[in-house]
Amino acid sequence: MKIKIINPNTTQSMTDGIYEAAISVKNSDTEIIAVTPKRGPVSIENFHDEFASTIGVMEEVHKGMKEDIDAFIIACYGDPGLYAAREIADVPVIGIAEASMYMASIVAPKFSVVAVIPRTTLMLEEVVKRYSMDTKCVSIRASDMTVLGFEENPELGMEKLKAASIKAMEEDGAEAICLGCAGMVNFTEALQEELGIPVFDGVTAAVKMAEGLVRLGKKTSKRLYFKAPEKKKYINFDYIEPK
Amino acid sequence: MKIKIINPNTTQSMTDGIYEAAISVKNSDTEIIAVTPKRGPVSIENFHDEFASTIGVMEEVHKGMKEDIDAFIIACYGDPGLYAAREIADVPVIGIAEASMYMASIVAPKFSVVAVIPRTTLMLEEVVKRYSMDTKCVSIRASDMTVLGFEENPELGMEKLKAASIKAMEEDGAEAICLGCAGMVNFTEALQEELGIPVFDGVTAAVKMAEGLVRLGKKTSKRLYFKAPEKKKYINFDYIEPK
Amino acid sequence: MKIKIINPNTTQSMTDGIYEAAISVKNSDTEIIAVTPKRGPVSIENFHDEFASTIGVMEEVHKGMKEDIDAFIIACYGDPGLYAAREIADVPVIGIAEASMYMASIVAPKFSVVAVIPRTTLMLEEVVKRYSMDTKCVSIRASDMTVLGFEENPELGMEKLKAASIKAMEEDGAEAICLGCAGMVNFTEALQEELGIPVFDGVTAAVKMAEGLVRLGKKTSKRLYFKAPEKKKYINFDYIEPK
Amino acid sequence: MKIKIINPNTTQSMTDGIYEAAISVKNSDTEIIAVTPKRGPVSIENFHDEFASTIGVMEEVHKGMKEDIDAFIIACYGDPGLYAAREIADVPVIGIAEASMYMASIVAPKFSVVAVIPRTTLMLEEVVKRYSMDTKCVSIRASDMTVLGFEENPELGMEKLKAASIKAMEEDGAEAICLGCAGMVNFTEALQEELGIPVFDGVTAAVKMAEGLVRLGKKTSKRLYFKAPEKKKYINFDYIEPK
Amino acid sequence: MKIKIINPNTTQSMTDGIYEAAISVKNSDTEIIAVTPKRGPVSIENFHDEFASTIGVMEEVHKGMKEDIDAFIIACYGDPGLYAAREIADVPVIGIAEASMYMASIVAPKFSVVAVIPRTTLMLEEVVKRYSMDTKCVSIRASDMTVLGFEENPELGMEKLKAASIKAMEEDGAEAICLGCAGMVNFTEALQEELGIPVFDGVTAAVKMAEGLVRLGKKTSKRLYFKAPEKKKYINFDYIEPK
Amino acid sequence: MKIKIINPNTTQSMTDGIYEAAISVKNSDTEIIAVTPKRGPVSIENFHDEFASTIGVMEEVHKGMKEDIDAFIIACYGDPGLYAAREIADVPVIGIAEASMYMASIVAPKFSVVAVIPRTTLMLEEVVKRYSMDTKCVSIRASDMTVLGFEENPELGMEKLKAASIKAMEEDGAEAICLGCAGMVNFTEALQEELGIPVFDGVTAAVKMAEGLVRLGKKTSKRLYFKAPEKKKYINFDYIEPK
Repeated sequence: MKIKIINPNTTQSMTDGIYEAAISVKNSDTEIIAVTPKRGPVSIENFHDEFASTIGVMEEVHKGMKEDIDAFIIACYGDPGLYAAREIADVPVIGIAEASMYMASIVAPKFSVVAVIPRTTLMLEEVVKRYSMDTKCVSIRASDMTVLGFEENPELGMEKLKAASIKAMEEDGAEAICLGCAGMVNFTEALQEELGIPVFDGVTAAVKMAEGLVRLGKKTSKRLYFKAPEKKKYINFDYIEPK
Repeated sequence: MKIKIINPNTTQSMTDGIYEAAISVKNSDTEIIAVTPKRGPVSIENFHDEFASTIGVMEEVHKGMKEDIDAFIIACYGDPGLYAAREIADVPVIGIAEASMYMASIVAPKFSVVAVIPRTTLMLEEVVKRYSMDTKCVSIRASDMTVLGFEENPELGMEKLKAASIKAMEEDGAEAICLGCAGMVNFTEALQEELGIPVFDGVTAAVKMAEGLVRLGKKTSKRLYFKAPEKKKYINFDYIEPK
Repeated sequence: MKIKIINPNTTQSMTDGIYEAAISVKNSDTEIIAVTPKRGPVSIENFHDEFASTIGVMEEVHKGMKEDIDAFIIACYGDPGLYAAREIADVPVIGIAEASMYMASIVAPKFSVVAVIPRTTLMLEEVVKRYSMDTKCVSIRASDMTVLGFEENPELGMEKLKAASIKAMEEDGAEAICLGCAGMVNFTEALQEELGIPVFDGVTAAVKMAEGLVRLGKKTSKRLYFKAPEKKKYINFDYIEPK
Repeated sequence: MKIKIINPNTTQSMTDGIYEAAISVKNSDTEIIAVTPKRGPVSIENFHDEFASTIGVMEEVHKGMKEDIDAFIIACYGDPGLYAAREIADVPVIGIAEASMYMASIVAPKFSVVAVIPRTTLMLEEVVKRYSMDTKCVSIRASDMTVLGFEENPELGMEKLKAASIKAMEEDGAEAICLGCAGMVNFTEALQEELGIPVFDGVTAAVKMAEGLVRLGKKTSKRLYFKAPEKKKYINFDYIEPK
Repeated sequence: MKIKIINPNTTQSMTDGIYEAAISVKNSDTEIIAVTPKRGPVSIENFHDEFASTIGVMEEVHKGMKEDIDAFIIACYGDPGLYAAREIADVPVIGIAEASMYMASIVAPKFSVVAVIPRTTLMLEEVVKRYSMDTKCVSIRASDMTVLGFEENPELGMEKLKAASIKAMEEDGAEAICLGCAGMVNFTEALQEELGIPVFDGVTAAVKMAEGLVRLGKKTSKRLYFKAPEKKKYINFDYIEPK
Repeated sequence: MKIKIINPNTTQSMTDGIYEAAISVKNSDTEIIAVTPKRGPVSIENFHDEFASTIGVMEEVHKGMKEDIDAFIIACYGDPGLYAAREIADVPVIGIAEASMYMASIVAPKFSVVAVIPRTTLMLEEVVKRYSMDTKCVSIRASDMTVLGFEENPELGMEKLKAASIKAMEEDGAEAICLGCAGMVNFTEALQEELGIPVFDGVTAAVKMAEGLVRLGKKTSKRLYFKAPEKKKYINFDYIEPK
């Protein structure tokens, strides 16, 4: 089975970290392909970045349709372009936010998401509502680090993640933590050990969810909302034009 | 005062219709600029179109920042790119969906949105939730016409809008109708007359909302969520890169 | 166009302040009439006051029907008698709460209402729910001043409004403030300057909303819920009896 | 124990029917006083009537404070003036809507309210939300009879109540019925027999709730929201002025 | 009238306290029977205890069907087995949580529940949602005492209840308190005196609710959801097998 | 990895079917143990059955703690005893309802649950709310077959499932179907083929979810709510007494 992970952030070192995390948990017969789109922002930290990143994501899903992909994963917690990707693909497309939040809901009655810089929490509030997790997610807390900051200064990153997580536990009653950025994937194990509660990274959660859906033979429903996009002209935009 | 209306659909004849509607209701000292972005889908009818259209919208808002614009209007009922536009601009940015739904809520206890083809209703459900109108909006009904179909066959368009509106009134208890596409702007008056209840077009509603906000001296809040996007590199995407 | 503003509080100096604020933002061809009802409480600070004030409000709307009024504004944040006024009038009737909250929602993702004395916050909670703004309004905070206190001691009023607004920003994440009493209208500009985020007064917001609705030719929907009240006998109450 | 039932509709024959129903279920040591306010509409069927009726209700609660009353009941399903009455009185004040809906929730997982004319259902929707019963109440259906119509033509009233109730059972899944008007009190037994599911009249439910609360020594909480109204001047309105 | 109170906790001294409280508020013609089930946990403080206790509860309801019982009360705030009891019985079955919360809603706009040890608050959150009281109940606070701790050390119990209640009042705005355990029944009067706001114990509230429902001739609706359980084989479990 | 599936229905042939379905989708290194509890109802179709079944479920989880189990699955759509099982076990415990609903949410924007007999839909409404899926699940429809009826007459079962699913698609807009009973596991493939949309069986979904959680090293959070049950005496109930 072939799973294509698309990192909407166009930073190759981040994609590399995502790839490493993914292969560390995959089944033996799963092939992981992790790609950096050829256009888009180097990191996603606001709505401007998010919308811009959807183009590269859609481009990679279109390409994936010719590559025998069995499932796609969009590796950014804002799940940019997710619904468009489901229109393009007939195989499952998994957002890392939904995968980690659904899994967290199974091992804990209440969880919190720990995000990057404060302004991203509005984006994550929308994500939580979209996946109907507002009665499970008790808070979204910012660690106050940038996406790329976690790569540049991992010690500080760990410290900030821990501080925000402890606040979530003590003030909000969180019993599990979801890491709200694909760039935090390397902190999962250590943080889980420190906190003593389950910590979920979206990428690895999505890999297992993808493997499960594919193994069960499930595909994206094409009944109405996620039908293929209508063929039409996209002006000055032909790389993702639906034909 | 200068209001720039951006039609995310890259169809000039549609932009022309929007412009005509806007000037018919504007105050005498308001200048309306209606633009067709230079890139993007000719019509927006699914999430693929919607995300693709955000690029042209953001480009036009960036340009608008050098044009002394007092308020922006995004003339597509899915409000594509709205939150990004609010990050870019410090003046108000008004979505036609929110403008019409808020106004409808003042003259009717319950309203319905009448959309284009059925698959767009999921997009509109998200819009209704984003503006917190789910207790006022009693249904979203599709007229089963495409965006451009309303231009090509206005008689049939009128008929379908009327049929869907009457169902909304009789089965869902709607007491006002919001037209869920900027391309329906020319049907407002006639439909209102036919139905005997208020019918709102988003473009004209947004023009009055924009004039009001500007006259009151209100600007987009820059406290946290709609701060200017962080300066960063956008790979192969420099026309909207935030610098 | 003729807009009649009814101040449910029977304090003439307060009505004068409302009038001044209204004319400062109106369009040149708008005529503002601001009235103090001839019966009712001098200020509205609890449900007892609110219900009592509805009689004077209804009386003024009945009178307005013979005065060629194009829109009514009810200038108290509890919007007393609003739905009855919509039954009486066929033109739009705008509550200052809904006008300011809808406008605030367009320039800020989250707002707070700052009220007078603490006990009024329950009334405002009902208002927020009635206009479906509970996912936008992050808190209702009391300034702990009476309605008339703002007239008697404006310096202290300003200080208290500022203190409550800062708490709303820092503790609740408010990015805009709605002033929860028509008597606060004179503090808008100064407070906005102090806080650096949009501050909305309901009276001026309602004036612009009224002008917009009238210009668009919208009237109160008379389909079912806001039909004229049934003709019937009101015992010992003939000044508002529907005949 | 002395329970004062205030019928906000100023129709004495209706008050008489309410009194009869109340004494038929009261405890032997309970004294029932049923009054028709000296001012207000003869029936309540819209918001105009409702607000107008609050004055007579408040007047009767003020009077009741000098009459050693142990609990008040407001006998109109819209519960007009309820929160003001709680401000005036320190003893319990029970709305017939809340009493019947809470009791219905105990014997049935889902219930419907059957109302008078269609336009009253908006008022009842607000009532249902106010008492937080929106997840228990599956529908509000109109019988399409006026308040006084039930007195004038009880056979037709019974027929219409039954028809609406059966629709509520078959189409909405109601397993109990709440009669949404104090004037329907005489139909309870017969309707319950016909339908085979519990039917609640608000007046009798409120009498038992009142007796319970008084017996348990509970009074209206005076901590903040229902404190006595502030003493102040009511212009041309001195019969209910709080002094 | 005969009311059977079932204490799901199999601690006789606790049942005795419940009985004393019940007879202190009952009507003169009401007979109270308070029973300790013959199997189940000595106290209920987690889901394991709760599910285990349902068996003894169901057994007692089955027995009650041969004892001419007019209403059942389940005297544990988690209301264990309540819906099963309603399937077995055709007379009303009242949970102490719903009885106290509905009554509290009538005398206060917002209330809090004060529970035993912290882990029980999740159970109570489910209870609050089941009775649709989430917009009335502003918090569930733990007193941090065990169920039986209140019997063993009533002075400390009183102190802890008071401390938690004061936090609920000051931090959450509670205007009434519901005691979240049948074992707290003896603290009601003293705590109410201390706090100056209404304090509700579930047992006494349920007795009055039961008397009311019986007096009104209401029974559990048998339309669909609470029909008698289907006759079937229960393996190794015959004491509650439905035949 | 060892996964223990507990079938709360004490019908061995049903457990056999569950086992067959589970092994057909498991990873090669997963060992499946499917057990029929030694006490409890032969099928679960109402709350009486459900509570009774929790005892056998808890007993099997207690036993499983000495059997090196890596994850438990509770194979009944009402998820009986789930939260108690999470208290007992430190490894993940997965309900088949949550597993299937979360997976369905990833491949379809809206899904329906198709249940057995009509009275079970109340139980499933509670399940849907517990997993916060009420904005994704558009309806719960009954097939009107008993649990064991599906074994006795599979042709009729298939027909009824199909009829209910088609109603869910056409009237409620479902784009995926969740089969609301573990006994429907054998109909998944055929029904999916017939309907052309994804159909989820809870057992197979739970197996993949369990494998994923175990592979990621996640365990049930033991912070507060799912801590081990307090040691205490269970009267006449020692097979599950927590010691």
